[in-house]
Amino acid sequence: LKLFLKTKDDVLILGCSGTGGMEAALVNVLSPGEKMLALVAGNFGERWAAIGKAHGMDVRVLEAPWGEAVKVDAVASVLEKEKDIRAVFVQFSESSTGVAHDIRGLARLTASLPGTILVVDAISGAGAMPLETSEWGIDVVVVGSQKALALPPGLVFLSLSEKAWAKVEASTAPRFYFDLRRERKAQGEGESAFTPPISHVVALRAALDALEAAGGVDALVHNAGTLAAMTRAAAGALGLPLVAPKDHGDALTALYPPKDLDSGAIVKALKYEFTSTVAGGQGRLKGKIFRIAHLGYYDATDILGLVSTLEIVLARLLRRVGTGSGSAAAQAAYLEREVAR
Amino acid sequence: LKLFLKTKDDVLILGCSGTGGMEAALVNVLSPGEKMLALVAGNFGERWAAIGKAHGMDVRVLEAPWGEAVKVDAVASVLEKEKDIRAVFVQFSESSTGVAHDIRGLARLTASLPGTILVVDAISGAGAMPLETSEWGIDVVVVGSQKALALPPGLVFLSLSEKAWAKVEASTAPRFYFDLRRERKAQGEGESAFTPPISHVVALRAALDALEAAGGVDALVHNAGTLAAMTRAAAGALGLPLVAPKDHGDALTALYPPKDLDSGAIVKALKYEFTSTVAGGQGRLKGKIFRIAHLGYYDATDILGLVSTLEIVLARLLRRVGTGSGSAAAQAAYLEREVAR
Repeated sequence: LKLFLKTKDDVLILGCSGTGGMEAALVNVLSPGEKMLALVAGNFGERWAAIGKAHGMDVRVLEAPWGEAVKVDAVASVLEKEKDIRAVFVQFSESSTGVAHDIRGLARLTASLPGTILVVDAISGAGAMPLETSEWGIDVVVVGSQKALALPPGLVFLSLSEKAWAKVEASTAPRFYFDLRRERKAQGEGESAFTPPISHVVALRAALDALEAAGGVDALVHNAGTLAAMTRAAAGALGLPLVAPKDHGDALTALYPPKDLDSGAIVKALKYEFTSTVAGGQGRLKGKIFRIAHLGYYDATDILGLVSTLEIVLARLLRRVGTGSGSAAAQAAYLEREVAR
Repeated sequence: LKLFLKTKDDVLILGCSGTGGMEAALVNVLSPGEKMLALVAGNFGERWAAIGKAHGMDVRVLEAPWGEAVKVDAVASVLEKEKDIRAVFVQFSESSTGVAHDIRGLARLTASLPGTILVVDAISGAGAMPLETSEWGIDVVVVGSQKALALPPGLVFLSLSEKAWAKVEASTAPRFYFDLRRERKAQGEGESAFTPPISHVVALRAALDALEAAGGVDALVHNAGTLAAMTRAAAGALGLPLVAPKDHGDALTALYPPKDLDSGAIVKALKYEFTSTVAGGQGRLKGKIFRIAHLGYYDATDILGLVSTLEIVLARLLRRVGTGSGSAAAQAAYLEREVAR
């Protein structure tokens, strides 16, 4: 897990899904009443704010329009004005829009402030885009088992810097199952504080062995980048607008349907005719977009197949003849990435 | 799950292990500062008290010597004196000693008090001993996937009475991942508030189907009762003192080793020579006892095999000749239970 996250710190394992990991990160580094800044660029950014409010934190929100990232400059000016912000919370990949945040730039900001840490929800971003936890100076990274590592959901992984651990020791927030002090001690002794999801831990070892054999996290990140480039190229050729045209990440691609088409019809046709799972929208984008994943086991063949079936589905729904232009664009993007390599 | 717990209320599923389920139960039915009564008869009773303290509850503890249950009369007299106790927390089966609490008697007490509920950690007790959640008037039951249901750890199940739900709605304790209001709404719509451990949920369905085919929870409980009776009979014949001679349950049997023998030596010999996993002690009984489980897939053949290998191990460690008396006693107990049936 240290290799996966490129961290020099120990990585803790908790038995829960991503939201539990986010809550564990938050309640361990803040005390009730302390000020936090949530960068909100979509559904999962809103979750950071909601968890903070549930635990009595003084929650400051910096929002970007859905489809855009919160910019480092905007964060810098808030931190400049409000010196009592103790932690900044952000998504590496905001799964509701496909936006990626500039984690490196944000970490540079917080690294210069002795009392402020950066907490990154990298649940769907780690393993899809380059992430240098220790080198960039990220204080807390949260990752889930079910994204790039392609395990079932049920485990989260947390890496904390020494700067973050000092906050954990000082926090007065009530916590028990998610108490990282207890887990640090137990897992440091090769145990766990409470019964862990054993089958997931065994599967994790297999997944990490397979990842190592396949070239490690850099190969996984390169693969996601290729699939994302292919998908964006196909979307351009097919006239499907990107939800995040400027700040898109490589974990997924979120697309608007063609004018006058229901995104749900596309999702359903792909699912029932081709058994392909493409996600709909979340939160305020529910029913308005569809999202294609590039994480984990997906490879170029999967994406080429999906783009082709998407062309069939669109041709039928739009009552027109497909031209293969999406497939051609995806193929060209593949060749450009892989020959350049 | 309703059949398994004999409850008329909906059963919620959470993605965590047993301790997370205990914490979820506690933080949803109490507000910080409210008075609770933890019945402590071992390691897991202490956990109820520790979770309450971590969340700022006013924790009253009623303790029994390890190896005994907390008696209903003692609870009645505390509740009589301290009218502001809002919830009583107890283990159905206290796994550290093998003690079972009189849940029916406790539920009769709390059912008569309009402001007080009974919260039962039935993680290892459900499916091992008769439990009538609704008929007895238990307000909250917490169960784990990895005990009688024989799934991997990673899921917990909670059943709450309407009396308990009123407390959930009133609670001001901070919570997010474990917020049962959110899960009740989402699971009522066939969804879940957050990503669930999907592979566990699929396995749960298979386990419940298998349970139904095997005669349901009553058959499972009968099986555990048989295995417990066999083990206690063997222990008597072999001169191994029960940790809980009077208040023993059927989920497990906890035994002291013969005088001058280290319990760890027994656990190790069974594990390395016969690949049988028998647990050591926990908390203040660590290194002093060993515990034999009767839950889930274990059957009479397993217990007879275990008793026989235990006789071999004891004979070798005590440098004496085995007589088969433990096996004979277990066989007799089996015949008595099954012929009587």
